[in-house]
Amino acid sequence: MAAPPGRRRGGGRAARLSARAAPLPADLRPVRPGLDGGRYKVLDDADVIRIHTAALDALEQIGLANAPASGVDLLTGARAILGPDGRLRFPRALVEDMLACAAKAVVLPGRDPAFDLDVSGNRVHFGTAGAAVHVVDPVTLDYRESTTQDLYDAARLVQALDNVHFFQRPMVCRDITDNFELDTNTIYAACAGTTKHIGTSFVGPDTLPGCLELLYLIAGGEAAFRARPFVSNSNCFVVPPMTFATESCEVMEICVRAGMPVLLLSAGQAGATAPAPIATAVVQAVAECLAGVVYVNAICPGAPAIFGTWPFVSDLRTGAMSGGSGEQALLTAACAQMHKFYGLPGGAAAGIADAKLPDMQAGWEQAISNTMAGLSGLNMVYEAVGMHASLLGFCMESLVLGNDLLGQVLRCVRGIEVTDETVSIDVMKAVCLGGPGHYLGQDQTLKLMQSEYVYPDVANRMSPKEWVEAGQPQLLDQARARKEAILASAPHLLSRDLETRLKSRFNLVTLSHN
Amino acid sequence: MAAPPGRRRGGGRAARLSARAAPLPADLRPVRPGLDGGRYKVLDDADVIRIHTAALDALEQIGLANAPASGVDLLTGARAILGPDGRLRFPRALVEDMLACAAKAVVLPGRDPAFDLDVSGNRVHFGTAGAAVHVVDPVTLDYRESTTQDLYDAARLVQALDNVHFFQRPMVCRDITDNFELDTNTIYAACAGTTKHIGTSFVGPDTLPGCLELLYLIAGGEAAFRARPFVSNSNCFVVPPMTFATESCEVMEICVRAGMPVLLLSAGQAGATAPAPIATAVVQAVAECLAGVVYVNAICPGAPAIFGTWPFVSDLRTGAMSGGSGEQALLTAACAQMHKFYGLPGGAAAGIADAKLPDMQAGWEQAISNTMAGLSGLNMVYEAVGMHASLLGFCMESLVLGNDLLGQVLRCVRGIEVTDETVSIDVMKAVCLGGPGHYLGQDQTLKLMQSEYVYPDVANRMSPKEWVEAGQPQLLDQARARKEAILASAPHLLSRDLETRLKSRFNLVTLSHN
Repeated sequence: MAAPPGRRRGGGRAARLSARAAPLPADLRPVRPGLDGGRYKVLDDADVIRIHTAALDALEQIGLANAPASGVDLLTGARAILGPDGRLRFPRALVEDMLACAAKAVVLPGRDPAFDLDVSGNRVHFGTAGAAVHVVDPVTLDYRESTTQDLYDAARLVQALDNVHFFQRPMVCRDITDNFELDTNTIYAACAGTTKHIGTSFVGPDTLPGCLELLYLIAGGEAAFRARPFVSNSNCFVVPPMTFATESCEVMEICVRAGMPVLLLSAGQAGATAPAPIATAVVQAVAECLAGVVYVNAICPGAPAIFGTWPFVSDLRTGAMSGGSGEQALLTAACAQMHKFYGLPGGAAAGIADAKLPDMQAGWEQAISNTMAGLSGLNMVYEAVGMHASLLGFCMESLVLGNDLLGQVLRCVRGIEVTDETVSIDVMKAVCLGGPGHYLGQDQTLKLMQSEYVYPDVANRMSPKEWVEAGQPQLLDQARARKEAILASAPHLLSRDLETRLKSRFNLVTLSHN
Repeated sequence: MAAPPGRRRGGGRAARLSARAAPLPADLRPVRPGLDGGRYKVLDDADVIRIHTAALDALEQIGLANAPASGVDLLTGARAILGPDGRLRFPRALVEDMLACAAKAVVLPGRDPAFDLDVSGNRVHFGTAGAAVHVVDPVTLDYRESTTQDLYDAARLVQALDNVHFFQRPMVCRDITDNFELDTNTIYAACAGTTKHIGTSFVGPDTLPGCLELLYLIAGGEAAFRARPFVSNSNCFVVPPMTFATESCEVMEICVRAGMPVLLLSAGQAGATAPAPIATAVVQAVAECLAGVVYVNAICPGAPAIFGTWPFVSDLRTGAMSGGSGEQALLTAACAQMHKFYGLPGGAAAGIADAKLPDMQAGWEQAISNTMAGLSGLNMVYEAVGMHASLLGFCMESLVLGNDLLGQVLRCVRGIEVTDETVSIDVMKAVCLGGPGHYLGQDQTLKLMQSEYVYPDVANRMSPKEWVEAGQPQLLDQARARKEAILASAPHLLSRDLETRLKSRFNLVTLSHN
């Protein structure tokens, strides 16, 4: 193998490191939100049609039970058929009509417009999500209950991590028992920590009026929020298999009418609440989300919604969830391809680790599914970072490391530019025919250093010798130091004035700034 | 999110675990060597042609320097043109003619035919390779010099790890200083440890006669070795950019004439010994390997050779190699696609970690490039497991963990079966319409448990509660225990009689069995 010549050449190194240290304008950064994926297709085109057809059959023949009364009215009004068994069945033509009027592109705004997400086509965005109940401490190995302060810290970290593009609530504030306070504090802690787009769930329809009031206060009025709804609703509108989640549907109706984007989330588990064959699990998830599309567009045609086929996987030996498996990565990739088929903005889960700690297992589990999701062009990759123990634990150090992991995945999503310049052999000629015999000092090399190559923040690329000289730094120590450094200088992103008004109206937790 | 119902159902768990414990016939295993990849195409078809054309231009206009005298004779005899600058240039028609007669499928035999590798089409195989000079101890953090015993242990581990399909020498026996003894002991230790296909390098042409004698002794004669050459030659026949490695070319000539398959290995480093743009680095690697194809087929038309475009990546800030980067994964994926274009058996590097230890960084670095390689249908994925510090260190615990990682990658390569059964909604109907409302006990679920789902050996899927009850097992401890268990019972795979004959002829190291 050719020895790495760079290791022997100290000369240009300082200059190169210094050139790299200069900040890059956003448009020159090697990776960014919304890069085009889609070069990987796990399904043949014919397979996509077969899955689509089976999903339509399921909607026509099986339908969904347990719609709320308001939903029954809306859906039968739209031509769904209520059977004597209480199930709503969806004629094929109804589904096709609603697909035709469904929103094909959704913008998920940040509170800062620099973070707006254009969710359409093959554009890929990675972010947090989930409902972990624990925070994982990788030093003490403790799984302790997650708190509002943790949520705030996670939001502040995401604000500083370039490759995490949105902040959907990844964990539950377990220090709060009252439902309304849970929902309002979740919004408050997230908004105080980040101006990226936020996703949240609501406990039930009763908390919505107050939560909307909170959002309007933060936005500067209802009109301002409707113009730029920086919080969307992650809505588990179905309890798979093929059953509406009655209360969540009521929440969805309110959110859609309030102009809030909705993630239509079908979270079955293959082998448990969804069929065991991967293809059939996709059929069921697609059928359920198509029911969601009909529902949303029956409320308000063209309302912004994300097609949220989130089928999970069981370890069939135990029935326990296994979000870190290869089967999970395949499910997510197949879902992404179905989203493209419908031309709808779509999201699914990837990046889940079954590993309890941010160890090597976590690294490969998070990487495989995030890579497959990105290459598939999944628009919204949820749960992409920080999730451990099959979604039960969230880890801040892992979140920081996940930013590096996603940088690499995004580099892969960006792909290879084949242009006149990159297939020209001029530089090869100059180097080989009477030139220096290497490319280290070439203008082309220096130019590409900043725009084409992604460098990790925390991950270590030292040689063993450098590493020993540096005291053998351990990855988790570096991640923890980076986390603490970010939190030490992270701003509180609500003004003092607004903060006072919010606290006079709502019972909000006091958040610590570092 | 739907709660995982399996966690609440202890009933069928024992039965499911016991069903799973029954051994599976090889043809029913969910993953195996030679699964078809190729669903991911990092390049457009037009890009492939542009890269091919540029490579032909480079061969015609730049050519390669430093061929040995024998190579100059062979290649000019085949119509290559020797310039006054000492470079051999290759007319387009020559390259095309040699591509036409090159071997399109190669079988790399194992000493046990059950491990034969059919290297053709989109069939994917993962294995070790490299020239690490250290063994990494993840407990003491020590990078110590690698020995013949380490090589033997690594071979014995690979023999037991189903998802590692071949054993190319991953590290150098640093306890041996004599060149001939180095080459013979490398073959000996590898053959004593595994009956999977073995790859090795030779220090120079002088060691070859003795090494062939050793191989003939192990095979039971020259004819037996020629019939099933279970050792192939990993041959760095070029020193990029565009220079033949004189001595390695002489080794190649001997190996080809001896009927030994040759890996034509071009290991440039983008930004250092190869151009910095990813596409141009591929152009150069392809040009160099095409020169190798011409060379091999000038010696013996149709001789078995692997198209070994192994471009590596530099961290352009320092010039140091960064095998764990996203850019590396892209390079490898692009190379796989070029192999398909030529219809030649091909190999490249993936799975390299820059991480010094088997930590989370190592997990994502190994996973991203192995996933991309597998999905691209790369025939031979070299350096797929165990490699740390950008190839300088080999780690046994990481090798054991890598087997789990590759199991998951292979599951992704296998993809999703869309069949009449898997798009049938019959089971959904049975479950939803008057059925139990979940899929846990369905015949379909139980049937798929063994054949469709991959289970890790070492990776941990416990819930946090189970994990605490089990004493919070740490991944590296588990990996070390698994390593020791394998080595404790691993057989020595040379008979006592053969061993005696080998030792009477060669100066071989005494290997410890556990």
